[in-house]
Amino acid sequence: MAKPKSSAAGALLLSEIREQPDALRRLAGQRKAIAKLVKKIERYQPQMVRLVAHGSSDNAASYGVYSFGLMPALTCFRDSISLNLYYGAQLRLDKSLVVAVSQSGRTPDVVEFLADAKRRGALTLGITNDPESSLAEIADLVLPLEAGPERAVAATKTYTNTLAALALLAGGVAGIGDLIADRIESLADSMEQFLPEHEQGAEEVAAALHDVERMFVVGRGAEYATARGVALKVKETCQVVSESLTSTDLAHGPVAAAGGLCPVWTIACYDPNLPAAIEAAKRAVAAGAPVMASGSAARLLPNATWQLPTPAVPDPVLSPILSVIPGQLFARALSLSKGLNPDAPEGLNKITAVP
Amino acid sequence: MAKPKSSAAGALLLSEIREQPDALRRLAGQRKAIAKLVKKIERYQPQMVRLVAHGSSDNAASYGVYSFGLMPALTCFRDSISLNLYYGAQLRLDKSLVVAVSQSGRTPDVVEFLADAKRRGALTLGITNDPESSLAEIADLVLPLEAGPERAVAATKTYTNTLAALALLAGGVAGIGDLIADRIESLADSMEQFLPEHEQGAEEVAAALHDVERMFVVGRGAEYATARGVALKVKETCQVVSESLTSTDLAHGPVAAAGGLCPVWTIACYDPNLPAAIEAAKRAVAAGAPVMASGSAARLLPNATWQLPTPAVPDPVLSPILSVIPGQLFARALSLSKGLNPDAPEGLNKITAVP
Repeated sequence: MAKPKSSAAGALLLSEIREQPDALRRLAGQRKAIAKLVKKIERYQPQMVRLVAHGSSDNAASYGVYSFGLMPALTCFRDSISLNLYYGAQLRLDKSLVVAVSQSGRTPDVVEFLADAKRRGALTLGITNDPESSLAEIADLVLPLEAGPERAVAATKTYTNTLAALALLAGGVAGIGDLIADRIESLADSMEQFLPEHEQGAEEVAAALHDVERMFVVGRGAEYATARGVALKVKETCQVVSESLTSTDLAHGPVAAAGGLCPVWTIACYDPNLPAAIEAAKRAVAAGAPVMASGSAARLLPNATWQLPTPAVPDPVLSPILSVIPGQLFARALSLSKGLNPDAPEGLNKITAVP
Repeated sequence: MAKPKSSAAGALLLSEIREQPDALRRLAGQRKAIAKLVKKIERYQPQMVRLVAHGSSDNAASYGVYSFGLMPALTCFRDSISLNLYYGAQLRLDKSLVVAVSQSGRTPDVVEFLADAKRRGALTLGITNDPESSLAEIADLVLPLEAGPERAVAATKTYTNTLAALALLAGGVAGIGDLIADRIESLADSMEQFLPEHEQGAEEVAAALHDVERMFVVGRGAEYATARGVALKVKETCQVVSESLTSTDLAHGPVAAAGGLCPVWTIACYDPNLPAAIEAAKRAVAAGAPVMASGSAARLLPNATWQLPTPAVPDPVLSPILSVIPGQLFARALSLSKGLNPDAPEGLNKITAVP
């Protein structure tokens, strides 16, 4: 199964992980253009926000539920592409802002969903790394990700920039767009500082867990997106079945499958979900599972075998942009420790076109 | 790890699996009482339906997105308990029907969500197997599951009756409540007929896969609930990390983790998601993964090593009530083949109270 490890294996993914602070600054630098999009959204007065995406973009979209819910208190949910498109359900969309996320801007059914929603009266917004793509062409409003070219199959900087884009949009609608842009800029500086330390930390965890074949990644609230993001990176690059769960999910059954050979990565941040994260880590340890902790409150999980804390941020709603970094680095390091190439996992392409 | 297998191990779960046709008939027999609930919902004119639940009830809730979306074309989504309750976001709920699902009616934050939503102007409906529970006491409207006592930790008949309850409600709002009740009754007869054959089929698959420690379960649209349901039964009772995915999810990364030691269970039904199910099975086979197929169109997955087809139903929207059965039986059989006790998995309780 294992492919020979070339000296360059993982270099591409690492360089893109390291580019994230710059990519975030570029996006925050677009604050005026984003403010114009926000004005148009305000004029439309959406009653709800529907998110559509696949893969890493869909993981990032999970965060929109919280950025829109916590800042402008707008109902926001990940809509079902199959319901609206394949089944052809005729839901009312005329009071909805539809936000489609696609790094390439070419994911067929995401583009089609947007086009259909536009015909049916929704205000449509495309978040994409390619402002020349068909998604950008069709959408009423376009928010370019400004992440620069991403060539590793596993998305990293387009993921974190999508989180930032959803924070900037939601913050804008809540009237605090400039504050959020400032905070993202300082968060980028902070990310730059802790990256080298975490590169080493992630390698130590990966070396200890190199024979792991299954694991859980636990996060709740705004950090559920992080759990989904980390779990997917590990599945993509390590041939490991890593499932994301909310901390509550873990207790409702899955904890029965945790154990010595099934570690639990727990994301713990300073937000109202912290007690649930601590409880989840306790349950995992009781089940005999090694626990890795990341997030701003990682040090508060005393039973964790490994702690990879990220800096606290003034707005907890922004912390997922930092929390995912240790997971990205862990996935890369674990892939290498298994003799795989994290830059180009077997059987995957950068752009996935499936029905 | 394995506990000694007693002669009675798995008997409780099996008896509850076999009780499902009767439980469905009891619920369909409540059609007049459900029609009264529907009248009250119509009077309220909800613009959207918010579902809240945990564990198996949350898996069943996924189905509500499709029953409400496909029958009365109402927007319906699984709401975030953490957003509304732990973070205290102040979303507008005054045009929402909030449907809380809890077998016991005592899941603390589900009950609390409902109480809070009621204070904030939502119409609240509780679906529970205990009409004397605090959920039933607090909700504006109560739909008793009529499943009878469920004692195995892994939910089976309360799961299928929750699907049926969501179909009866959505069908009622769409003006076809009686038709749906009739169809559920004939579907119960059909379930009774195929159960013995599937008990044997599931044992054969489980015997062949007794050393599996990780797997994927793939389903899309209305059958995504089935994928979640089957994956959770396997996690609960078999100490296997089994992750549910949409067929599209599989292609966006996870397929890299499928292979000889990571089989893929695919749910294929006669509905517009069938091409995606066939494509997913092809990808799984290409990755070297053994494929198990269930659902009404299981025979159309020619590359599947095992086929456990369920009868086609006149309304594809009802097929998830049948599709989950082979998965329940497989989880039980796999648990037994691993020397575990599927009736009472270690570390789990029937009622889970977590923050």
